[in-house]
Amino acid sequence: MAQSTPSYDALTQTYDRLHKLEHLQSIAGWDQAALMPPGGAEARAAAMAEMAAVLHRLRTEPALREQLTKAEQESLSDVQRANLREMQRDWRLHNALPEDLVQRAHLASARCEHAWRSQRPANDWSGFLENFRPVLALAREQASHLSQAFGVSPYDALLDTYEPGMTAARLDAIFGDVRRWLPGLIARVRERQAHEVVLAPKGPFAVDAQRQLCERVVRELGFDFAAGRLDVSTHPFCGGVPEDVRMTTRYRDDEFLGSLMGTIHETGHGRYEQNRPRGLIGQPASQARSAAIHESQSLAFEMQLGCHPGFVARLAGRIAEAFGPQPAFEPENLARLLTRVKPGFIRVDADEVTYPAHIILRYEIERPLIEAEIEAEDIPALWDTKMQELLGVDTRGNYTDGPLQDVHWPAGLFGYFPCYSLGAMYAAQWFAAIRREMPDVDARIAAGELAPVFDWLRSRIWQQASLWTTDELARRASGEALNPAHFKAHLERRYLG
Amino acid sequence: MAQSTPSYDALTQTYDRLHKLEHLQSIAGWDQAALMPPGGAEARAAAMAEMAAVLHRLRTEPALREQLTKAEQESLSDVQRANLREMQRDWRLHNALPEDLVQRAHLASARCEHAWRSQRPANDWSGFLENFRPVLALAREQASHLSQAFGVSPYDALLDTYEPGMTAARLDAIFGDVRRWLPGLIARVRERQAHEVVLAPKGPFAVDAQRQLCERVVRELGFDFAAGRLDVSTHPFCGGVPEDVRMTTRYRDDEFLGSLMGTIHETGHGRYEQNRPRGLIGQPASQARSAAIHESQSLAFEMQLGCHPGFVARLAGRIAEAFGPQPAFEPENLARLLTRVKPGFIRVDADEVTYPAHIILRYEIERPLIEAEIEAEDIPALWDTKMQELLGVDTRGNYTDGPLQDVHWPAGLFGYFPCYSLGAMYAAQWFAAIRREMPDVDARIAAGELAPVFDWLRSRIWQQASLWTTDELARRASGEALNPAHFKAHLERRYLG
Repeated sequence: MAQSTPSYDALTQTYDRLHKLEHLQSIAGWDQAALMPPGGAEARAAAMAEMAAVLHRLRTEPALREQLTKAEQESLSDVQRANLREMQRDWRLHNALPEDLVQRAHLASARCEHAWRSQRPANDWSGFLENFRPVLALAREQASHLSQAFGVSPYDALLDTYEPGMTAARLDAIFGDVRRWLPGLIARVRERQAHEVVLAPKGPFAVDAQRQLCERVVRELGFDFAAGRLDVSTHPFCGGVPEDVRMTTRYRDDEFLGSLMGTIHETGHGRYEQNRPRGLIGQPASQARSAAIHESQSLAFEMQLGCHPGFVARLAGRIAEAFGPQPAFEPENLARLLTRVKPGFIRVDADEVTYPAHIILRYEIERPLIEAEIEAEDIPALWDTKMQELLGVDTRGNYTDGPLQDVHWPAGLFGYFPCYSLGAMYAAQWFAAIRREMPDVDARIAAGELAPVFDWLRSRIWQQASLWTTDELARRASGEALNPAHFKAHLERRYLG
Repeated sequence: MAQSTPSYDALTQTYDRLHKLEHLQSIAGWDQAALMPPGGAEARAAAMAEMAAVLHRLRTEPALREQLTKAEQESLSDVQRANLREMQRDWRLHNALPEDLVQRAHLASARCEHAWRSQRPANDWSGFLENFRPVLALAREQASHLSQAFGVSPYDALLDTYEPGMTAARLDAIFGDVRRWLPGLIARVRERQAHEVVLAPKGPFAVDAQRQLCERVVRELGFDFAAGRLDVSTHPFCGGVPEDVRMTTRYRDDEFLGSLMGTIHETGHGRYEQNRPRGLIGQPASQARSAAIHESQSLAFEMQLGCHPGFVARLAGRIAEAFGPQPAFEPENLARLLTRVKPGFIRVDADEVTYPAHIILRYEIERPLIEAEIEAEDIPALWDTKMQELLGVDTRGNYTDGPLQDVHWPAGLFGYFPCYSLGAMYAAQWFAAIRREMPDVDARIAAGELAPVFDWLRSRIWQQASLWTTDELARRASGEALNPAHFKAHLERRYLG
């Protein structure tokens, strides 16, 4: 017999309404980044801020507090109880923030992000600072509210919004360990690759052909184009809604691997979203577990699978079909291209070995920035010092390829960057588990049989959504909570094996 | 000294919020028609229905009634008083309808419209009927509520939502007059054109070249692409927001004039929206005056200007540049092509002489449909009879090119169709006024000087927005309220002159 759960039911109705309204906010956000002409920017920012206020009011309706308490006493199934836990988390996060602060933060970051789009190519750091200072001030204000509500440090509070359970202390340990072995590993790989002959693909590469190639690969990776799109934006991302996933990439006609691999990356995000449990859609428990788990999917696609020698050999054929054959497209050369390690300026263009250095740098800047130990003006000098220290490159005066390269800070996202490297670590952990369970998986990938990998990800990650805490999800999927040793082992196996 | 107007000010804040939230609804609606993959349809319909409910709740907040009454007593400027009048109209319209009815109607029409997109090409009338019956039932229910609230007939109540002040009695007189002279005029024009030699353009016409041609013409017609876009959808329309106008068209590679002239049509709508008084944006008085006045702009662009022999001569050059020269692109031949009168199935493809027949037919079906004098099942037989009677064409069994051809009824829009012909009449009236004031305007158009026409439209129509009633707007612009004699004179001058 069905139990009577009036408070829980009322909560699910509120979250269903939020889901529907957030649908419009998501699509408008995607449009803003992918299609909107500049004249619409001011009005769009105001519209989205107004909607953010509407959503905030729904999440802070006084009735919710009592419903959350009463629902605790109702007879709930395990799934309902997990959903209630996620509702409580969502409620705590949003009720720590005053409505006008949420609205001001949305407005400031929309303005800053829009201006950043032209300030970045213009290398205009001082112009950027004007819009960025209010974004930072509002992020600190938000962090301070969250910090007081949860009794953790301001940065931990922001981190927790993307990566529940993660802390600066845990990151210090994880990244501290990486700092110990990464420089040596980079040096050994660079030495080993020093005399490798790698042919560069000869362009130009027609954008239309690139688009067709990307769409073909995305389709072969299982993305459902009847429930999503692939378009173009300055900073590639995966947005939209689970029922209509909007991925973006960007094309240059002198280079195609960046957009191809970037598209494969977004496809990992896209498939996670398209495969969240449909029966729970609209409910917090159906959400992707965390930012790092999301990145573990995009990096599983881009790095574990996309740079897998067996996958690369098949990709080489697709590339030759798209642009005509050339020696650079031979499988072995392509694999060398995709695993070439070279310290550089740009995070999104970085190889998987130097990538963690970019993240550690951002973590070491954004944590003190939020804790008000440093100011926005201090970023460039710190950036220059740390890039020199971690990767030996000189970034002085080059803001375009320095602190202006990412959309995150202009958009008011602090605490997100660490999730990329945590995602790389989880991705390595998933593939280590897949190999233990399916010893022939590498041969199957080489044979073009990707279904076993997708089935594993679907059942262990995508369909599990937020039914468990992150640590529990990882344990159920792979037998243990986050263990960065798998990432180190993956790099050593692929680059020094 | 500024007067204290607390109630009026509170109302402007509510309308400002509505404007911002409607921004998201508009962009999502445009996306739905232009870009959305089929898998997103159900979720989008649900999201937009939820948003419609939010907007409805804002418009029916109990405080508004008292604010509207109190604002009447406040010391308001003429513009504020006009704005208050439009707020009252908006309030009356929306407070006549229960929230759940609004939501059910949005959901039903979104579903029906989505299914119609595949049912139309499949000629699937019976499949369409299943989704259309609830749309009609809900439209009648809405009409009944509005009818009771305003003390007018159900159809007049719907008509008034698009065309304030218009009634079926007034339409009966206007369309009754057209019925008297139109068949004779069509016959005389057909006789005169019977032995005219008209060369058909030879295709195919590359869609990319068409797109570039359309964008060039749209730009030359003054549309601001920094605050708008031109994309593709099944049924061309002009949507978006005044700050970011989204026009659509559709391309076929065997024919280009339809999409070119359709795009010119939408540009009229687009410029009206882009030029609404910016200081009032968000307030009801800044809205376009009515559907017929809106259509008077699109038809001023498409018919009065777009088919003007002086404009056509210049357009001919653009066309030859787009597709290469051919005899059919000679100015005189192109003018004959654009003024060729031929009864046909499709309203949007109709010439301006037979077009009113399509409207009269729809008016004569949708009025009794809403008044429950006939049912949805009766449409095809009536359609066949009236098409035979008005235009002498046989539509039996051809639903695709018959009652399934328009998006209006599937989308729940009843009372809109008459506005197209009223718009054609107003457009002729504007150009008659322009010619009286600027006797050399035809020579200036032929010389490519379009600014005088645009300046007239901007100052007399666009910038006047809803500051006056429709009749007063027309009197201030052209010296008289709607006078259909200008339309008849225009047709006689162009087709028999």
